[in-house]
Amino acid sequence: MNYQDFFAEELTRLKDEGNYRHFAELERHNGAFPAATCHNGPGEVTIWCSNDYLGMGQHPKVLDAMHEALDRTGAGAGGTRNISGTTHDHVLLEAELADLHGKEAALLFTSGYVSNWAALGTLCSRIPGLVVLSDALNHASMIEGIRHSRAQKVIWKHNDLEDLEAKLQAIPANQPKLIAFESVYSMDGDIAPIAEICDLADRYGAMTYLDEVHAVGLYGPRGGGVAEREGLMDRLTVIEGTLGKAFGVMGGYIASSAALCDFVRSFASGFIFTTALPPAVAAGAAASIRHLKESIAERQAHQDRVAEVRARLDGIGLPHIENPSHIIPVMVGDPVKCRFISDRLLADHGIYIQPINYPTVPKGTERLRITPSPVHSAEDIDRLIGALEALWTECQLARLPMAAQ
Amino acid sequence: MNYQDFFAEELTRLKDEGNYRHFAELERHNGAFPAATCHNGPGEVTIWCSNDYLGMGQHPKVLDAMHEALDRTGAGAGGTRNISGTTHDHVLLEAELADLHGKEAALLFTSGYVSNWAALGTLCSRIPGLVVLSDALNHASMIEGIRHSRAQKVIWKHNDLEDLEAKLQAIPANQPKLIAFESVYSMDGDIAPIAEICDLADRYGAMTYLDEVHAVGLYGPRGGGVAEREGLMDRLTVIEGTLGKAFGVMGGYIASSAALCDFVRSFASGFIFTTALPPAVAAGAAASIRHLKESIAERQAHQDRVAEVRARLDGIGLPHIENPSHIIPVMVGDPVKCRFISDRLLADHGIYIQPINYPTVPKGTERLRITPSPVHSAEDIDRLIGALEALWTECQLARLPMAAQ
Repeated sequence: MNYQDFFAEELTRLKDEGNYRHFAELERHNGAFPAATCHNGPGEVTIWCSNDYLGMGQHPKVLDAMHEALDRTGAGAGGTRNISGTTHDHVLLEAELADLHGKEAALLFTSGYVSNWAALGTLCSRIPGLVVLSDALNHASMIEGIRHSRAQKVIWKHNDLEDLEAKLQAIPANQPKLIAFESVYSMDGDIAPIAEICDLADRYGAMTYLDEVHAVGLYGPRGGGVAEREGLMDRLTVIEGTLGKAFGVMGGYIASSAALCDFVRSFASGFIFTTALPPAVAAGAAASIRHLKESIAERQAHQDRVAEVRARLDGIGLPHIENPSHIIPVMVGDPVKCRFISDRLLADHGIYIQPINYPTVPKGTERLRITPSPVHSAEDIDRLIGALEALWTECQLARLPMAAQ
Repeated sequence: MNYQDFFAEELTRLKDEGNYRHFAELERHNGAFPAATCHNGPGEVTIWCSNDYLGMGQHPKVLDAMHEALDRTGAGAGGTRNISGTTHDHVLLEAELADLHGKEAALLFTSGYVSNWAALGTLCSRIPGLVVLSDALNHASMIEGIRHSRAQKVIWKHNDLEDLEAKLQAIPANQPKLIAFESVYSMDGDIAPIAEICDLADRYGAMTYLDEVHAVGLYGPRGGGVAEREGLMDRLTVIEGTLGKAFGVMGGYIASSAALCDFVRSFASGFIFTTALPPAVAAGAAASIRHLKESIAERQAHQDRVAEVRARLDGIGLPHIENPSHIIPVMVGDPVKCRFISDRLLADHGIYIQPINYPTVPKGTERLRITPSPVHSAEDIDRLIGALEALWTECQLARLPMAAQ
């Protein structure tokens, strides 16, 4: 077999299908984000698709904490958590996270992806006979963790309580069960019925595992996520989150009982056999969490900015998925036009919004996923709306009299 | 099922078996490493088991690059590589890594663990009919990646060319094959016969995948690893490395052909669906690599320090595995005594060496894994040798007239 030919052919196939990914090479301007330089594009751009939802990645408290930790303790952790890599900054951050979610303990991972993969992989493989009930639209990291565990898996229709209950009923009462789901789903921005899922979990004796990566920092009086806002944190067995989106840095975690965290700590390969996060990353994340526990200004400005962009899109009749979150999917419904609009936004208007095409979303639902933030200005919004209006006309895409259905 | 009872029982079982892990909570002193504060121990300690092998985690060039990147571009990347998370610093680092290994391209991952898991998982699952030939002592991240791929797996005896050839012969000639192995094995410090493995790969039409995480930065004229030292980099299909050990920061990568890297970039879930490394981490790692490409002083001092510690151990008759690398496994051969010595080193002598017990190493081979570095002083070595001698006597452990067999 000619391996290199095989790789080249597979890449050609991807390109022919229109699914080959081009990465924009960006350099964010600290203090001026969402402004950035696009090194393989037109130069100065405004980013409208970042998951640094609140701009915490340039917050002085976060950066000061990182500078301080670099000066105090150096660059890397130097080892796995077990072999010289547990630092004071990790321990402080885990305490901060446990407190954020009102749980006994928290456990850090190198990323949100690894936290889902390792925690679900460990829980689902190590609890004898466990059945995992997984929402149909769960993130790739959850799917891969469950797959890796080789546990019995039952997929329930997305956010569908009837289907979940039917699936729970079909499993023997004494069989261990885990319901895995997200609060805010990244691509549609819809939110799970957490309370009702917890009700079903109680009724059928299931554990619950809630991914709040698109919610922590953003919802709840202290930024604990949707479960905090709805007063439900104590009803969830595991809350999983990320330090790389609203908190603006990097890393992932679970918060749960002390025994569950210690169990995952003790058995998860993806936790044990990997170098710990740099202490400066942990210190920056802890500073971000501490700030957002006390300050609601960022969350309020975020919601205001999201509402404003939605209203402006409605004003020009652009179709976007109505949802109760901060994610605004502007629907194009055609992969070629979606990429074309994205390319023209970048080249002609200095606006960067990555097109979201199949397989990330179903064919026919291609979209621009817009994430307004408190650091987008009124002028940024004006330019975005003006550019979208011009391109919508040019592409002869349908408009709605009132866009939000 | 009472889930919390289950977790508690499993933890009790671990403790009863002596396999429960206690983490030392450390705070490294930047500029004075290996000095650190042990927050859950005796206070000031000297670390003798770090994988920051050269002390690059406190090198001014590394820290300056990280400070500069924080000031210039902020804390986090803000997205996946595809959605706003590819930064100029990532692109520069990938170019630095491709150059380091003389390859067309390199691809960054959030950790060395993820790079092995994602790259092997993708290559082994996506190449139809591929058989992976895996060294029996490969790292957990490689094992999990191969397991995740569900490809046909053949395990060959550790570093045993005869066994590898027999296994290759037994596979049909036209079936795709990948030989996965490491250069320096972490726990014994032995080194693979890379040239001979490449010969076999050529003879039987196999790709080669070499994990150099315990070698990059440390071996070869520019720190490209054992394969560079032996002039073999061009014979390897994939070289995998880490930025979290000798380079002192965090992250992992593969270096290979442009087509292979692009293939993994396009299909690996663990690459695609995760937030990119913080730009400051990428900048720090790039500075570390650049420095070690040009400076051999750290590598020379490292080897000198390793030779000195070995000679001093021989001088007091302490048994350690003779190997051609920088890793010094001092053999205790008893789990209780191994932990006892480690505890006493910490409590009485301020010397931190994590005990390595089963299941990380086979029962009866419990050890202290010592990693001397250029930043350990002559006084540090004197104190280490003095403490070990006293404890060896106290524990009535066997000595050798000439320790190195």
